[in-house]
Amino acid sequence: MHSLDELKERLREFARERDWEQFHSPKNLAMALIVEAAELVEHFQWLTEAQSQALDPEKREQVAQELADVFLYLVRLADRLDIDLMDAAQRKIVLNAQKYPADKVRGSAKKAGES
Amino acid sequence: MHSLDELKERLREFARERDWEQFHSPKNLAMALIVEAAELVEHFQWLTEAQSQALDPEKREQVAQELADVFLYLVRLADRLDIDLMDAAQRKIVLNAQKYPADKVRGSAKKAGES
Amino acid sequence: MHSLDELKERLREFARERDWEQFHSPKNLAMALIVEAAELVEHFQWLTEAQSQALDPEKREQVAQELADVFLYLVRLADRLDIDLMDAAQRKIVLNAQKYPADKVRGSAKKAGES
Amino acid sequence: MHSLDELKERLREFARERDWEQFHSPKNLAMALIVEAAELVEHFQWLTEAQSQALDPEKREQVAQELADVFLYLVRLADRLDIDLMDAAQRKIVLNAQKYPADKVRGSAKKAGES
Repeated sequence: MHSLDELKERLREFARERDWEQFHSPKNLAMALIVEAAELVEHFQWLTEAQSQALDPEKREQVAQELADVFLYLVRLADRLDIDLMDAAQRKIVLNAQKYPADKVRGSAKKAGES
Repeated sequence: MHSLDELKERLREFARERDWEQFHSPKNLAMALIVEAAELVEHFQWLTEAQSQALDPEKREQVAQELADVFLYLVRLADRLDIDLMDAAQRKIVLNAQKYPADKVRGSAKKAGES
Repeated sequence: MHSLDELKERLREFARERDWEQFHSPKNLAMALIVEAAELVEHFQWLTEAQSQALDPEKREQVAQELADVFLYLVRLADRLDIDLMDAAQRKIVLNAQKYPADKVRGSAKKAGES
Repeated sequence: MHSLDELKERLREFARERDWEQFHSPKNLAMALIVEAAELVEHFQWLTEAQSQALDPEKREQVAQELADVFLYLVRLADRLDIDLMDAAQRKIVLNAQKYPADKVRGSAKKAGES
């Protein structure tokens, strides 16, 4: 599996095999996505920023699994809404570049990626 | 831009041009990611499940932009931790398939994608 | 214990006894709060709205504990910032009443408590 | 307004006047609560822990309003589920004290308030 499209197909099949499509409304999937995002946040909540950049292998693998969970729900939710994730990402980068011109926001925490 | 790798490179460049790398600790990026996930949830909070599946074009575009924001922070965070998102997703699907055998969980809301 | 002030004092003592004050920066406590909020959301993610209003006793007790967790971090965070929660709540209700005049928003999902 | 009970009554009235009870299922209110929690997190995402403890007056007032929003939805959600927040908080503190004995966890980030 190498592409978002293949991943999307795999997740469709996964839900279909389990008869889970009935639960996969966008509303519910958005809830599931934020729950996984919080499990990610939980790994970092008592760490300093420096510690969060230097995870030991076990913790790093746990974090990788949480990132995967967020990714899977993100791909699934985009599919249910017939939204092309990669296309949306490209368009958003263009918008962000207009919103945060490099020479205006350089080094400013205030604007570091707010969107 | 067609691949996660290209997207990763584009986001590196975006942060570098703005001198934002200093703010992009995994801890901070996880916070930014969940903030974007909540902006996604906000679109659905007062909708019924059926309404969430039938968004009008304007709302759908807003949701697409929130999905993109989550995606961008996800790719950026994975990059900062040197985690391969697609590889992690594949491994997680295998784990989920073992955890939720189709013939055991079919149609059960209890297990619909918990992970 | 009957008041927010007593609860605040109890939580101060709890943190002091465990030498946890060092971890209780507002940044970290905000992260902990949203993690607990997500554990609350997790209980509802695959339920219909009607099911979420009719929890069985066991589930209801689990939800009560998650509500408590959110509450504890909220009181602790407000204390660390020297913010009076009850006073802030009162002021916010006044602002919300101005923002959402009853005769303008009646029955409109769009505005149901957005703030 | 000085007590949780008065606050609860005020929020009931607020919803009733606007015919918003129809939107206030526990599922929806949990979503609204986490959205407000994320608006709180947003204020802290690019700050250092030290900066998060030393907010300027304007930012502190914004944070107070977000704390209030979380509080209002928390009280409203507890009311819809007929859960006594203060009672649940007291019981949770007892559970936490058993789970994290002061002499076992002192100064350990690993356990700093996980619950």
